[in-house]
Amino acid sequence: MSNNLLSSINSPNDLRQLDVNQLPQLAQELRDFIIGVVSVKEGHLGASLGVVELTIALHYVFDTPNDCLIWDVGHQAYGHKILTGRRDNFHTNRQLHGISGFPKRSESKYDAFGVGHSSTSISAALGMAIAANLKGDLEQQHIAVIGDASIASGMAFEGLNHAGVTDANLLVILNDNAIGIDPSVGALKNYLTAVKEGKNPRQNNIIKSLNFDYSGPIDGHDIEAVIQELERLKKVKGPKFLHVITTKGKGLQQAEENQVQYHAPGKFDANTGEIIPKSEANLPPKYQDVFGETILDLAQKNEKIIGITPAMPTGSSLKLMMDAFPKRAFDVGIAEQHAVTLAAGMATQGMVVFCNIYSTFLQRAYDQVIHDVALQNLPVIFCLDRAGLVGEDGATHHGVFDLAYLRCIPNLIVYSPKDEMALQNILYTAQLGLKQPIVIRYPRGRGQNIHWQTPYDKIAIGKAKCLKEGTQIAVLSNGTIGNNVIQALENLKYPSAIAHFDFPFVKPLDEALLHTIFSKFKTIITVEDGVITGGFGSAILEFAVANEYHSNVQLLGIPDEFIEQGTVLELQQYCKIDVTSLEALFRELLY
Amino acid sequence: MSNNLLSSINSPNDLRQLDVNQLPQLAQELRDFIIGVVSVKEGHLGASLGVVELTIALHYVFDTPNDCLIWDVGHQAYGHKILTGRRDNFHTNRQLHGISGFPKRSESKYDAFGVGHSSTSISAALGMAIAANLKGDLEQQHIAVIGDASIASGMAFEGLNHAGVTDANLLVILNDNAIGIDPSVGALKNYLTAVKEGKNPRQNNIIKSLNFDYSGPIDGHDIEAVIQELERLKKVKGPKFLHVITTKGKGLQQAEENQVQYHAPGKFDANTGEIIPKSEANLPPKYQDVFGETILDLAQKNEKIIGITPAMPTGSSLKLMMDAFPKRAFDVGIAEQHAVTLAAGMATQGMVVFCNIYSTFLQRAYDQVIHDVALQNLPVIFCLDRAGLVGEDGATHHGVFDLAYLRCIPNLIVYSPKDEMALQNILYTAQLGLKQPIVIRYPRGRGQNIHWQTPYDKIAIGKAKCLKEGTQIAVLSNGTIGNNVIQALENLKYPSAIAHFDFPFVKPLDEALLHTIFSKFKTIITVEDGVITGGFGSAILEFAVANEYHSNVQLLGIPDEFIEQGTVLELQQYCKIDVTSLEALFRELLY
Repeated sequence: MSNNLLSSINSPNDLRQLDVNQLPQLAQELRDFIIGVVSVKEGHLGASLGVVELTIALHYVFDTPNDCLIWDVGHQAYGHKILTGRRDNFHTNRQLHGISGFPKRSESKYDAFGVGHSSTSISAALGMAIAANLKGDLEQQHIAVIGDASIASGMAFEGLNHAGVTDANLLVILNDNAIGIDPSVGALKNYLTAVKEGKNPRQNNIIKSLNFDYSGPIDGHDIEAVIQELERLKKVKGPKFLHVITTKGKGLQQAEENQVQYHAPGKFDANTGEIIPKSEANLPPKYQDVFGETILDLAQKNEKIIGITPAMPTGSSLKLMMDAFPKRAFDVGIAEQHAVTLAAGMATQGMVVFCNIYSTFLQRAYDQVIHDVALQNLPVIFCLDRAGLVGEDGATHHGVFDLAYLRCIPNLIVYSPKDEMALQNILYTAQLGLKQPIVIRYPRGRGQNIHWQTPYDKIAIGKAKCLKEGTQIAVLSNGTIGNNVIQALENLKYPSAIAHFDFPFVKPLDEALLHTIFSKFKTIITVEDGVITGGFGSAILEFAVANEYHSNVQLLGIPDEFIEQGTVLELQQYCKIDVTSLEALFRELLY
Repeated sequence: MSNNLLSSINSPNDLRQLDVNQLPQLAQELRDFIIGVVSVKEGHLGASLGVVELTIALHYVFDTPNDCLIWDVGHQAYGHKILTGRRDNFHTNRQLHGISGFPKRSESKYDAFGVGHSSTSISAALGMAIAANLKGDLEQQHIAVIGDASIASGMAFEGLNHAGVTDANLLVILNDNAIGIDPSVGALKNYLTAVKEGKNPRQNNIIKSLNFDYSGPIDGHDIEAVIQELERLKKVKGPKFLHVITTKGKGLQQAEENQVQYHAPGKFDANTGEIIPKSEANLPPKYQDVFGETILDLAQKNEKIIGITPAMPTGSSLKLMMDAFPKRAFDVGIAEQHAVTLAAGMATQGMVVFCNIYSTFLQRAYDQVIHDVALQNLPVIFCLDRAGLVGEDGATHHGVFDLAYLRCIPNLIVYSPKDEMALQNILYTAQLGLKQPIVIRYPRGRGQNIHWQTPYDKIAIGKAKCLKEGTQIAVLSNGTIGNNVIQALENLKYPSAIAHFDFPFVKPLDEALLHTIFSKFKTIITVEDGVITGGFGSAILEFAVANEYHSNVQLLGIPDEFIEQGTVLELQQYCKIDVTSLEALFRELLY
């Protein structure tokens, strides 16, 4: 397929020189370009393929970047990036020092608002629209493109509810493809499906009830129809809502047919669409599967166990339990606040509730953790996947604040397993009848142990342990980053001066062991994969001053800045918590 | 008015012995009882008066506590408390060691779920209802009573959206009185008003679209009608929704007519309803009014200034600006998430946005602060009212976690003014063109300076200052709690050994001054009105170890437990940060 049209487009201005009847060809070229790069470089595929026509239409009709275009979540913005001057850099997508996988203000003036987490677009676009009104700019357009999974989140409703009583120049485009990362759920989704199928009278729909000028549903792959409707809406003042039907993965048969798998398929054959199998034989498990398989096993034995995920059944591997126990495992959609308080409600009735939320997304339910769970001391079991540095998803997705923002909450236990066995065993321990809430945080990606499914072993709450004896320097690590310490010490042939302790519990701390450590060691190093400010190391300092110890303490972890994308190893190197950096530090301290 | 009926009711079982036609009399007695106690002891009046009939009807029809009854927010639960065994303790409402002003699980088995923050009831009740299904209990009822201001919050929508696709035995009762603390706002409110006025066809309403069995609206003061409808709904399986119209303050003419003022009117004449004026002459201002009056003044001079409050125009005193500049000051309803991202959107367009949120409610928008504001380094100005210990509202409302959960966020400035002048000046400074976001946190209640409206003075970001010189011990305080330190030192006749430093910036720290302090003083005491874990003191420790200082440091602040209600002084005493406790500590250190 030639790239005749696409190769000449370096900005939306170039796009606007084309004739409307050239746009289907451009759509085909853009689709092929995305497939070509993502098949090799990996990334989010299906969402961007689904909005190729919509992307072209939006930049064709609207005066971007003067008009503000916001892509909710941003998974779907590859076409947008390619058409707005980033075509030739697109192969650096999601790489260290490359372009971000999400729209990002500092990267391009066409990225009106940084995204990554869901359901922010309506609020942000409304803010811009109100600002335009105040500045007397009545022509500027403000467009939020939001999927049907994201619009069901409470924050989106809050935005709609406010927008409906303003005269702001806001266009909300619902990209309705009935799927987020996993299939969409909830009453609103059923309602939208009924609208699509013509079963609801449009004149009385929910969106109209919120005082929006509603139009649609229209076929989002009919580029001329989309352009025609956008041209019409451009002239309508006030809050407007366009319902567009698209197919996720459009144009690549396998992606259309296997939408969950092709959300981010890894490498695949650009011609056939076949996913190139990774050699997964003899690899250690993903932590998410340790969770998924263990909770499935435990649920078979303990009928009080319930599982909850806000829209991440595949990503969390809760799907294993959902398939086996569909009445006891719930995907509640992108609704972290609801997920946590739902769990609290279940816990009041004696259920043993595992609430699995990515670390970065628990920020969405912080108040509910404090107010509904911890304050009432309800024994909800929070499983925070994707804790620490997540790699290519970058700044919006790192789970690095959790230790700091959770450690200050009374009643909460905070635990980071060092390995798969520890994760398995804490999951087992948590469902034995804890009397208080617990947070279990573990990283994205694979562990280190193929034979992790050992017999369950009950973990003593609040206990740390010595992994290696030593004489002068004590290294205290929290969670899986401890494996870097182990490797560094191994590389140094186990220096006798350095002791290593695994402190999986950030709260409660093992104070007995800490007394021993502070009495013995003059130099103490803490290592964590969260922010240093207020994190695990900070907890150790609080212990030290409360007990009048005066050892030298050095805190290693994430510095006080937002960390961009890259491989986990590259980012650990940047933060100096990778094996080589630790080894260098230890060497420096030893000699 | 006699209490013949009410005095015999020690539990809902007693209530259920009455004949339906006795209930209007009971309603009158209950209303009189609430008025009698609250007129003397203060508390939340209007909301509870509005649901007297509904409260009686609910306990009359349903089998509480086996059936689970959840009062959203809980302002309206006084009647519930009085009918469920707490009549004779009701005079201790909101006092230290007394009953809580909100439903609380540890206080009564009739309080199915602790509340305080808005919009949690649907999620919690749904969790209980799903648990009942799993346990095979198909008779248990689960009722969430939620106001029209609270149901417009995103979290409530998330609960409805999930409930609509379940077969859970859930009854949501919308207590529609068109007001929260301030009048309700938003498109949903307008829609509900239209429903009330018969302007919307019921068969196509929003709630029905979410797959609820909708009934109403009915008159919530017609006790027989309410009972009849509840009896009918008790037999309907699955998610149900009853729309009830009530009048806030019902039965007390002034409370009906001045609903904002009588939300929590203070002392008033139980017979006439007249509020007993407090002698406010020559009192220092409330901090909220320092904010309100200052932002009004600044907005007159800087047309880029915008004010945002999520549902607290009166409580934050943003109302002053809203009245003067209705197009530039926004009450967005109970929608903290939206409020923050709306502010971020406005800030991208060069507006100077003051987003005023109570400290405890910013927990609802934690992710938006990180992901939408700080990550993009947008100069939003957060004003956190009710920071620190708030007094009688108790555990759900203390703003004590903010320093810990905000300090770990990159790019953010965190500032606590010591007094009214500092608050005024930081508000002035913030709108001069900061290049990054700032959080300004200040307490509930009054300051100490009548003549606070001094000429504006620009504050140097990150600067601390010495308030009193000293030779051996350095006290570092953050914010208004520093006034307790000043008073304690004054009581001790300014001991020469003790120095006092005001550190209003928790972030960035004044490192230059800290070097001086740690070089000079062997004992350092930090004082804050937030949690010790991860807070201001913890920041000082991180500085100390990074710079290898080994002074003794003692951290004073809120201990690692949830603090109950009481006066601010009583709670400061409990935490040992009141004047007397500080004085005793200093004395002990000196001698």
